[in-house]
Amino acid sequence: MSVRTAFFISDGTGITVEAFGAAMLKQFAIPIRQVRIPFVDSVDKVYQIIKQINQTMETDGIKPIVFSTMATPEVAKVLHDNVKALHFDMLKMIVDPLEKELGMESNHYVGRFSDTAQSKSYQQRIEAINYSLEHDDGQSSRNLEIADVILVGVSRSGKTPTSIYLAMQYGIKAANYPLIPEDFERHTLPPALKEFRSKLFGLSIDPIRLSEIRNERRPGSRYADLLNCREEVAAAEAMMRREGIRWLSTTTKSIEEIATTILQELKPDRLGTESA
Amino acid sequence: MSVRTAFFISDGTGITVEAFGAAMLKQFAIPIRQVRIPFVDSVDKVYQIIKQINQTMETDGIKPIVFSTMATPEVAKVLHDNVKALHFDMLKMIVDPLEKELGMESNHYVGRFSDTAQSKSYQQRIEAINYSLEHDDGQSSRNLEIADVILVGVSRSGKTPTSIYLAMQYGIKAANYPLIPEDFERHTLPPALKEFRSKLFGLSIDPIRLSEIRNERRPGSRYADLLNCREEVAAAEAMMRREGIRWLSTTTKSIEEIATTILQELKPDRLGTESA
Repeated sequence: MSVRTAFFISDGTGITVEAFGAAMLKQFAIPIRQVRIPFVDSVDKVYQIIKQINQTMETDGIKPIVFSTMATPEVAKVLHDNVKALHFDMLKMIVDPLEKELGMESNHYVGRFSDTAQSKSYQQRIEAINYSLEHDDGQSSRNLEIADVILVGVSRSGKTPTSIYLAMQYGIKAANYPLIPEDFERHTLPPALKEFRSKLFGLSIDPIRLSEIRNERRPGSRYADLLNCREEVAAAEAMMRREGIRWLSTTTKSIEEIATTILQELKPDRLGTESA
Repeated sequence: MSVRTAFFISDGTGITVEAFGAAMLKQFAIPIRQVRIPFVDSVDKVYQIIKQINQTMETDGIKPIVFSTMATPEVAKVLHDNVKALHFDMLKMIVDPLEKELGMESNHYVGRFSDTAQSKSYQQRIEAINYSLEHDDGQSSRNLEIADVILVGVSRSGKTPTSIYLAMQYGIKAANYPLIPEDFERHTLPPALKEFRSKLFGLSIDPIRLSEIRNERRPGSRYADLLNCREEVAAAEAMMRREGIRWLSTTTKSIEEIATTILQELKPDRLGTESA
C-alpha cells in the first residue's frame, strides 16, 4: 500500500494545526507521512507549496491530505483553488459559522506570535519556566510562597517533566521537591514544605517501573534496586495519606494527563482564562 | 455586551482541541471565557456536562460555543442531540470525509495518552527533557556528541526556554551554552563547542530588550547595564558571523516561532515523523 502524505500548512508556526490534524489521523490505523509547512503568508509562497503538494500526489500515486489555517483570504483561496488533495481549510470551516453566530466579521488575524511574544500571558509563561527550573528537585526553598503548586514524590516519579510542562503550557509556577529516605526516617514532610500543605500534590509510581527507570540511570545501584524502590514508594504513599496530600500514580500516564489531572484538582487561581 | 463562554470537551485531556479552538476564537476581537473539560468518556459524564453547558446558556444569556472531540460515537451523539450551543463536533467534521477518502472506517480511538505514555516517541521526549536540563547553560560538556542541536548566545537571549520547548515538543536533545565575556576576550568559541560546529545555532536579541530582561533579574547591575548589553550582543553577533553559525534574533519572537525556525534550518535526522 502506498503511504499517504499529510501536510499541515499555516501562516504561523503551524504547531496548532499539526497537533490537531495528527490527532484526527490517529483515528486511522494506516501509516501517514506528516509534513508541517510553517510561515506560508504570501501568494508567492503558497504557489511554491502547491507545487510541492501536487508533486507529492504524483510520487505517492495517491491524494495527499492537507490541513491548513491561513487567515489571509486571498492566500487561502489560492491554496483551495489549486491544490490536488483532500483539503481541510480549517479556518474557513470554523470561522464562517462563527461569523454568522457572532454577527461580526473575523479579523483575519495571522497566527504569528510576534505580538504574542510581548503579551502579558507570554511573559508569565517565561517567568514560570524560570521559576520551575530554579525550584526543580528541591534546589531552592526560597519564594515557595509564590508557587502555584509544589509536586512531591520519590526520585524519578515524574515531577520534573510535569513541573516544566505546567509552566510552559499554562504559566503555572510549579516547584517540585523530592521525598527522600531521610524524610521517611523522620516520618515527616521536608520541613520547608510544611506551611504550604494546600499547594502540595503527590506523584507516585509503580515500583517495578520505577526500578526500570532508575536502572537506566544508575544500573545495579541500591537506588535502582527493586526492593528499595518498593520501600520508598510504600513510605512515600503512607506519608501522603497521613498528611492528607492528594496524589496520583504516574505509571501509565503521560505528562499531559498528569498535568490535566493536577489542574482539575488544584484549580489554581491563575487559570481563569479569558481570551481577548 | 455579555461574555460568551466557549467549552472544549474531550474524552482525553482536551489539550489539542483547546489549543485549536482558542486559535480560531482569536479571529474575533471579543472577550470569550474559555473552559476545558477533559476525560468526558461516558454517557453519564456527558449528561452532566450538557447540564453545565445549558445552565451557562441561561446565566450568560447567550449561546455558548462548544468544540468537542469524542471518539465514541454514542457519547458524541448524546452531546450533539442535547447541547444548546453552537457546536463543532470536530472529530465528525474531519473523520467523515477522511473515511470516505481513505475507504475505511475510523477506529474510534479515544485520545487517551495511556498507551502513548509507554511508546517509544514518548520515552524519547522524556529523555530529551532530561538531557536538555542537564545541558542547560553550559552545565555539562559531557555527551555533547549526542545533542541534536546546541544553542549559543549571550545570557538571557532565550536559550533555556527554547531548548526545553524543543525537547518537550519534539524529543530533540537540545543543549545550550552561554557566550560570556571571557569568550569575547579570547575571540573564540567556548573550547568544548569547537568540534560540534554543525550543530550550533545562535540566538541574539536587541540590546535594549536584553537590558530590560536582565534588569528584572539584577536591577542596576553592570550585567544589566545597556552599554554592557550592547557590547556583549555586538561581540556575540560578530563571533557568530566569523564562525559561520546560523542565528536569529529572538526579540519579537515567541518560543514556538524560534523553535520552528531552528527546525527548518537544522532539519535534525530524528524529525522524520511518520504516524502509525
